[in-house]
Amino acid sequence: MINYEDFKKIDIAVGKILSAEKIPDTDKLLKLSVDMGPLITEGPDGMKEEKRDIRQIVSGISLYFPDCSLLVGRKCMFVANLEPRVIRGFESQGMILAVSTSDNKFSLLSPNDDIPEGSRAR
Amino acid sequence: MINYEDFKKIDIAVGKILSAEKIPDTDKLLKLSVDMGPLITEGPDGMKEEKRDIRQIVSGISLYFPDCSLLVGRKCMFVANLEPRVIRGFESQGMILAVSTSDNKFSLLSPNDDIPEGSRAR
Repeated sequence: MINYEDFKKIDIAVGKILSAEKIPDTDKLLKLSVDMGPLITEGPDGMKEEKRDIRQIVSGISLYFPDCSLLVGRKCMFVANLEPRVIRGFESQGMILAVSTSDNKFSLLSPNDDIPEGSRAR
Repeated sequence: MINYEDFKKIDIAVGKILSAEKIPDTDKLLKLSVDMGPLITEGPDGMKEEKRDIRQIVSGISLYFPDCSLLVGRKCMFVANLEPRVIRGFESQGMILAVSTSDNKFSLLSPNDDIPEGSRAR
């Protein structure tokens, strides 16, 4: 059992997949580029700039997407505040959220398409 | 930032909404009955029994569903191991996961319909 504070620590947010490619010499790994929404930063002159929060995310979902180009443009849910990990030499700056079963059913979690990147699940 | 252990503590699972009703004298609250999948218990004779894990879940999403009967039969994602809380006199045994924005866009998170109740997000 967890409490609500434990849950609130996890930032689950909408991201839009910009590109997807298979990582060579692996069975399951895809390298995704994901737009996680706007990111406000302060420039050296103190001016605020809005950039996009673009992440590289490595995910073991390749078997479910033999043609991974079908992922491009999809909005789905990501854990956005997971500390980066290096997987087979590639830094993963988050994690895609998916449901799978022991008999190989699989589903990404998609919000309605009008929900903008960066929106948070709560 | 969180680490993977923090994430693994949270049990996010598919549930199917069996019934939905507005809680009287509240603006936003719905009382849902949700099938969270099979639950194996041991009877007094030591025999294993399979029941369904049916939860009562109170959720502040009523404004997005003026006709809450539209929710019945939908599969969506729930936090399944949140400690129960009493909300306006009703115990809530979990939390529905949804995305909303400051300009009132709203979306539940739906898996593909072939994913059975109780399947876990990872």
